[in-house]
Amino acid sequence: MTDETRTVGVFAGRHVLAELGGIAPELLDDVEFLRSALWSAVTEAGATVCDMLDHRFEPQGVTVLAMLAESHASIHTYPELGAVFIDVFTCGDRADPEQAVRLFAAALGTDPVALSTVRRGHAPVEGEP
Amino acid sequence: MTDETRTVGVFAGRHVLAELGGIAPELLDDVEFLRSALWSAVTEAGATVCDMLDHRFEPQGVTVLAMLAESHASIHTYPELGAVFIDVFTCGDRADPEQAVRLFAAALGTDPVALSTVRRGHAPVEGEP
Repeated sequence: MTDETRTVGVFAGRHVLAELGGIAPELLDDVEFLRSALWSAVTEAGATVCDMLDHRFEPQGVTVLAMLAESHASIHTYPELGAVFIDVFTCGDRADPEQAVRLFAAALGTDPVALSTVRRGHAPVEGEP
Repeated sequence: MTDETRTVGVFAGRHVLAELGGIAPELLDDVEFLRSALWSAVTEAGATVCDMLDHRFEPQGVTVLAMLAESHASIHTYPELGAVFIDVFTCGDRADPEQAVRLFAAALGTDPVALSTVRRGHAPVEGEP
C-alpha cells in the first residue's frame, strides 16, 4: 500500500485542474468504481498512492482524495450534472499529472474540458532530472 | 465531525494555490500541529471539515488532506526548505479559500507567496446566492 519514499528537495511540480462532463450519473455515485478508477489512473501515470479517503454525500455526489508520494489527487462528482472536478498535483518529474487526468476521463468514457496546468514551486535544483 | 450537506447544483468554486516559506522546520514535521492549524483555518474561513488524512514521510515532510463539504484542502510540507505547498478548493460562496490560506500561513508565522486563484466550473445558476 505504502511507498514511503519522497524525492527530498524537489519543491517543484505541476498541478493540473480539469472538469469532466457528459458522464452517466450512476457511475458518479459509485464509490468503489471511482476509487479504483482514480487509483489506476494515477498509478498508470507514474505516481504512487500512499492512501485514499472517500465520502459519499447526501443526496448524491462523491469525493475521493488520494494521498500520493508525489503530492495528491482529488475528484468531486456531481451525478445530477454528469460532471466531475478533478485535480492532480505531482512533484518531481516521474509522474505525469495530465496523463492521469486523461486516463481517469477515459475510464468514465469522456474527455477532460477546461484543463489547466499550474507550475508550482522552484525550478529543479542542479543535478535533478 | 461530519456535516453531510452539500449545496446541490453548485458546480462552481474557487481553487486557491499558494506557497509558504521561511517556516521553522520543526513545525513542518509536527503532524498534530499541522492538522489542527489546517482544520482551524478552513473552519474559520467558513468551510466544513468532513474528514482528514495525514501522512508523515521519511526522512521528513508531512501531507495533510482535508475533505470539505465544499471540496478539499491540502498541505505538503518541506521542513528541509522551511516551505509548504497549500491549496484550498471550495464550491459555493459560503467559504473563502483565500482567507483559509492566509489564516493557515498566519498560524505558521508567515505570509503566502505565489498565491493564485483558479475559478472552476459554471457560474451559479439562477436563484443561487
